[in-house]
Amino acid sequence: MSAKLKTAVVGATGYAGFELTCLLQRHPYLCTPLLLSRDGDMSRPSNLAEVFPGFTGNGSYPLVPFSWERLSESGVRLLFLATPHEVSQTLVPEALTRGLRVIDLSGAWRLKQEQHRAIYSSSANHREIADKAVYGLPELNGDKIRDAALVANPGCYPTSIILALAPLVRAGALDRTRGVICDSKSGVSGAGKEPTSRTHFVSVANNFSAYSIFGHRHTGEMLEQLQLSSHELVFTPHLLPIPRGILSTIYVHLAHRMVPADVEAMFQDFYRGARWVRIFATPQLPEIQFSLNTNYCDIGFGLADDGRRLVLVSCVDNLLKGAAGQAVQNMNLMYEWSEEAGLA
Amino acid sequence: MSAKLKTAVVGATGYAGFELTCLLQRHPYLCTPLLLSRDGDMSRPSNLAEVFPGFTGNGSYPLVPFSWERLSESGVRLLFLATPHEVSQTLVPEALTRGLRVIDLSGAWRLKQEQHRAIYSSSANHREIADKAVYGLPELNGDKIRDAALVANPGCYPTSIILALAPLVRAGALDRTRGVICDSKSGVSGAGKEPTSRTHFVSVANNFSAYSIFGHRHTGEMLEQLQLSSHELVFTPHLLPIPRGILSTIYVHLAHRMVPADVEAMFQDFYRGARWVRIFATPQLPEIQFSLNTNYCDIGFGLADDGRRLVLVSCVDNLLKGAAGQAVQNMNLMYEWSEEAGLA
Amino acid sequence: MSAKLKTAVVGATGYAGFELTCLLQRHPYLCTPLLLSRDGDMSRPSNLAEVFPGFTGNGSYPLVPFSWERLSESGVRLLFLATPHEVSQTLVPEALTRGLRVIDLSGAWRLKQEQHRAIYSSSANHREIADKAVYGLPELNGDKIRDAALVANPGCYPTSIILALAPLVRAGALDRTRGVICDSKSGVSGAGKEPTSRTHFVSVANNFSAYSIFGHRHTGEMLEQLQLSSHELVFTPHLLPIPRGILSTIYVHLAHRMVPADVEAMFQDFYRGARWVRIFATPQLPEIQFSLNTNYCDIGFGLADDGRRLVLVSCVDNLLKGAAGQAVQNMNLMYEWSEEAGLA
Amino acid sequence: MSAKLKTAVVGATGYAGFELTCLLQRHPYLCTPLLLSRDGDMSRPSNLAEVFPGFTGNGSYPLVPFSWERLSESGVRLLFLATPHEVSQTLVPEALTRGLRVIDLSGAWRLKQEQHRAIYSSSANHREIADKAVYGLPELNGDKIRDAALVANPGCYPTSIILALAPLVRAGALDRTRGVICDSKSGVSGAGKEPTSRTHFVSVANNFSAYSIFGHRHTGEMLEQLQLSSHELVFTPHLLPIPRGILSTIYVHLAHRMVPADVEAMFQDFYRGARWVRIFATPQLPEIQFSLNTNYCDIGFGLADDGRRLVLVSCVDNLLKGAAGQAVQNMNLMYEWSEEAGLA
Repeated sequence: MSAKLKTAVVGATGYAGFELTCLLQRHPYLCTPLLLSRDGDMSRPSNLAEVFPGFTGNGSYPLVPFSWERLSESGVRLLFLATPHEVSQTLVPEALTRGLRVIDLSGAWRLKQEQHRAIYSSSANHREIADKAVYGLPELNGDKIRDAALVANPGCYPTSIILALAPLVRAGALDRTRGVICDSKSGVSGAGKEPTSRTHFVSVANNFSAYSIFGHRHTGEMLEQLQLSSHELVFTPHLLPIPRGILSTIYVHLAHRMVPADVEAMFQDFYRGARWVRIFATPQLPEIQFSLNTNYCDIGFGLADDGRRLVLVSCVDNLLKGAAGQAVQNMNLMYEWSEEAGLA
Repeated sequence: MSAKLKTAVVGATGYAGFELTCLLQRHPYLCTPLLLSRDGDMSRPSNLAEVFPGFTGNGSYPLVPFSWERLSESGVRLLFLATPHEVSQTLVPEALTRGLRVIDLSGAWRLKQEQHRAIYSSSANHREIADKAVYGLPELNGDKIRDAALVANPGCYPTSIILALAPLVRAGALDRTRGVICDSKSGVSGAGKEPTSRTHFVSVANNFSAYSIFGHRHTGEMLEQLQLSSHELVFTPHLLPIPRGILSTIYVHLAHRMVPADVEAMFQDFYRGARWVRIFATPQLPEIQFSLNTNYCDIGFGLADDGRRLVLVSCVDNLLKGAAGQAVQNMNLMYEWSEEAGLA
Repeated sequence: MSAKLKTAVVGATGYAGFELTCLLQRHPYLCTPLLLSRDGDMSRPSNLAEVFPGFTGNGSYPLVPFSWERLSESGVRLLFLATPHEVSQTLVPEALTRGLRVIDLSGAWRLKQEQHRAIYSSSANHREIADKAVYGLPELNGDKIRDAALVANPGCYPTSIILALAPLVRAGALDRTRGVICDSKSGVSGAGKEPTSRTHFVSVANNFSAYSIFGHRHTGEMLEQLQLSSHELVFTPHLLPIPRGILSTIYVHLAHRMVPADVEAMFQDFYRGARWVRIFATPQLPEIQFSLNTNYCDIGFGLADDGRRLVLVSCVDNLLKGAAGQAVQNMNLMYEWSEEAGLA
Repeated sequence: MSAKLKTAVVGATGYAGFELTCLLQRHPYLCTPLLLSRDGDMSRPSNLAEVFPGFTGNGSYPLVPFSWERLSESGVRLLFLATPHEVSQTLVPEALTRGLRVIDLSGAWRLKQEQHRAIYSSSANHREIADKAVYGLPELNGDKIRDAALVANPGCYPTSIILALAPLVRAGALDRTRGVICDSKSGVSGAGKEPTSRTHFVSVANNFSAYSIFGHRHTGEMLEQLQLSSHELVFTPHLLPIPRGILSTIYVHLAHRMVPADVEAMFQDFYRGARWVRIFATPQLPEIQFSLNTNYCDIGFGLADDGRRLVLVSCVDNLLKGAAGQAVQNMNLMYEWSEEAGLA
């Protein structure tokens, strides 16, 4: 191991950005990350401990105003963006021009197809960059991630769903004519740090609700990565009264009759060597608590007596495997480090 | 209104039984209910306030040991059973012989078909009684409930699901070849008052989990009431980290293309005059909080652009419309009282 | 009973105002209340169900813009203010001039002494009105409330604390030289409906915190009503990760040695006939759940072996006995109705 | 660093024992710990992942039946007991005879004075061992812990309270004639993993309660370590609706008038060099979230204008600094490792 890598984070004051900063601080192959604030940041704190007082005493975490000069002077080679997609759309072209590698946690560069990208109002002149961006799901796209200049870190919901479905899709085991139903439930941190009437404690506690039926912007990622068309997949997100964690219950029909041992073997084979995916043997099912505060994606299932109707259950911590942890996993691939460096 | 009706409750120390007792206490047409304890009851409290100290000061609620003599001497005409199904299977035949009317909150008498009844180990000599029992969903079976000697009060999950699907099934609007997916989420009181490792606060808080995939005993009720076969419906229950409330997300295909206004009109028409069902106009969706502590079943929906794929969202308070409130609603029908008596 | 009373509510879209509206709707001696919105109200909804969708189907609850003319034309005789104290300071003088009776849920008129009133920035020309306002704690000030034109409804914390200490203070049983420690814990609805970073679900869940040490504006009410000086009482509020409910733990020294039976008898005697106070016999202690969704103030205690050190535990639902329920209880006194009308 | 130390854990299936096992697994100077089960353990699982399925995939964690032979053959030098105090009372004498060093997380050996030890039914023939046991609060007793054969790991409540009061007591800054009030609030894991009606989710959620007023068995530890007599300190524990974390609010009078800067300086000086205590500068106060999942004890305060009445706020994670983390910190001292080894 030679000199440590110099990284920077834009957006460290959000939930995912803060989680990322904590991971980068502890990562064995990195210098202390440079934390950059933007004009739009609330009250422009000068230190991360002002926003997260629990961070007190873990050292000094200055937040400095963003500028390209500062990035350049600091010798930063890898830039993490934990920003709204509009900000990522503005920063990424310039960053790439300046020779930086970028891992973007927003949705700005995840989609290739125009009909999906429309939801992020991506203008046409970004197409060239979008074409080069690599969708950062390490278990599926590891080879491309290694060489990528721009990694589009996946959404939290898609991570839980794509990893559960990919083994079936790739093996042709899915009866696509019967459709795929994805019923996902997420903790509140997925809705962001901005206080709204929807994230008020009194609105969330003792409650549970569905939202964005047939209209959530994460749907496009699932369709593109799984190569499904929009009428083949229904995705319904729900808001859980917990701070973090996602559980997706996924309903499919198998193309051929299977027994539980077949299904388990198919998943075990597909994810052999994948450090951050755990397959649960039936009847044990993953629960949100199991993967909380870890980078695991946990996958379990139940199979009907007919051997055709399959229910998959998939869990991730939305801030780790669903965001910051996956970003670190991607970085580990990009620099040919152990996939678990900084995550174990 | 002549003399008030005399009722009794077996099982008042459980969650549903307690909720029922509170409702009966306040009901305008009833005497104070007689509360009966069984040998198996924990520690056989002599007063309900020993088990629910918050009940202190609301009067005296003695619990007396169950005996047929006591029931008879007290002039009880209507017996509520909030007991395990094995107890209901023992008590109901004798109660009917003695001329009592019975509303049973257990699953003992809800099912007609042998293959479904097996899950409750119903013996053959009970078939005659099961045949006469009326499934107590007032919005669907009101006429039969009026004259019933034995009302089998529906399960909490089936209440939320059957009420959401009945308008489609009865209108022939469901494409049954595509199947029905019912993804339900329930608060912890649905798991009963017995302390277990599964209901321990630390197990439930910050967690969410699926259970009984392809194996929950409420499935039979849905199939029988909706006249579906077992391969046409998948039901997956989940445990929410909240004390009470159920939300079911239901995925169907329509037999014919519709627009949202058609769907809303179909539901409004079907439930016209139904005091305890509320239809939400899209895009407003019901949430668990909305029906908490009420006897409402709230139903909303989202329809895909193709006019065929429909997602229904249905909420009930599992202890009220899903148990005790529905029992009172059934009683109101049986005695030709206003459907909202004691429930508003 | 003659014609029903006509009331109005300003501030029905806040937590306490909404709870009050629900109580007034169901109150047997009232017309449907007139709901008035102010310019400052968020988005000026035209119906209460827009703000609280769970209210759907309970009838129509129009919100109309506030004007004195409308109040007058509607024949309103009693005005409830569930508004910020600045608004109450503006509206009350005019309302009294127009001959309306007022129950104000804000802190605007609760305090008599200038040093305490300063916290609400009360100007001197309001002193005359403040002098006539009656502190609306029915168990202590019932006679004055009956004839009051202006009732200043107590704060939620003071309600739990004053009711617990009043029997000791009035009997001279308190050793005031040793001081009184009030350690209170409240659910989040006490912080209001405005979304802030402090009321964000992720900030509150899995958390607990103290705030406003030696500086909470409810302290003055306690001092005035208990006739204590500021160095004799310490009050520390805390934020509980629950939507509603207050528990106060209060530490005092008795002036004379007592046994538990003495303490219990003193409290039972003091609150004999008080419909909404429950005294718990040791070792049973009140818990927040017991008084939730009720108008009770529950009081229990533990006494040290020395017979001098006494710990009181007092619980209220902050939105009912701590706000809206108490307001209705005050109205019942003002119109000589049963103290439990509309509250049982 | 020479060969790694071999440790064993009895009681790894409880909350504190499990947390301890996780810490020991990751500790840089230790072999994988030997996990021992006892006859009384529920169902005697053979692997820790059976009890904590979230542990799946982190390696194999066999639980083997306890025997002295196995301990000896395995070369274990340090024994951790996360067992009920009765078990610790049985195991410790033999362990010491066999030359093992022991860190006991139970209350069995924390108390020196007979009147306090009575609560653990310690028999007289244990006095000799109790006299040699060192109370394992590293910030106060570091020198003795280094050489101890038996470390009695402190209770969770006493950790939060003793650390907050020690600077005042040792400096003689406390006015002991005015007494000390300790109002503590704890998450549910403090009540243990056994399912009871008190730890049932429905009992805890939306609730908050006081218990064991003037009778909690942790009181003796506080009195002994702070050298206070029983009439000088009142301790009231409460149950918070969260899984873990303790906040203690402590009310004292200062012997001499101070300003906030004095208080802060006194605490900063006392804990200079203490890796796991953080002092918060007024007006910032610690909250439970800040120290959650860390080994910190966080201390803040508010001071009245009179410069005499002081309110201290102290937070720990009850399973880490209040149990397992502190046990590791003690081990680090005993083996002269960095105080943060395995804890950062």
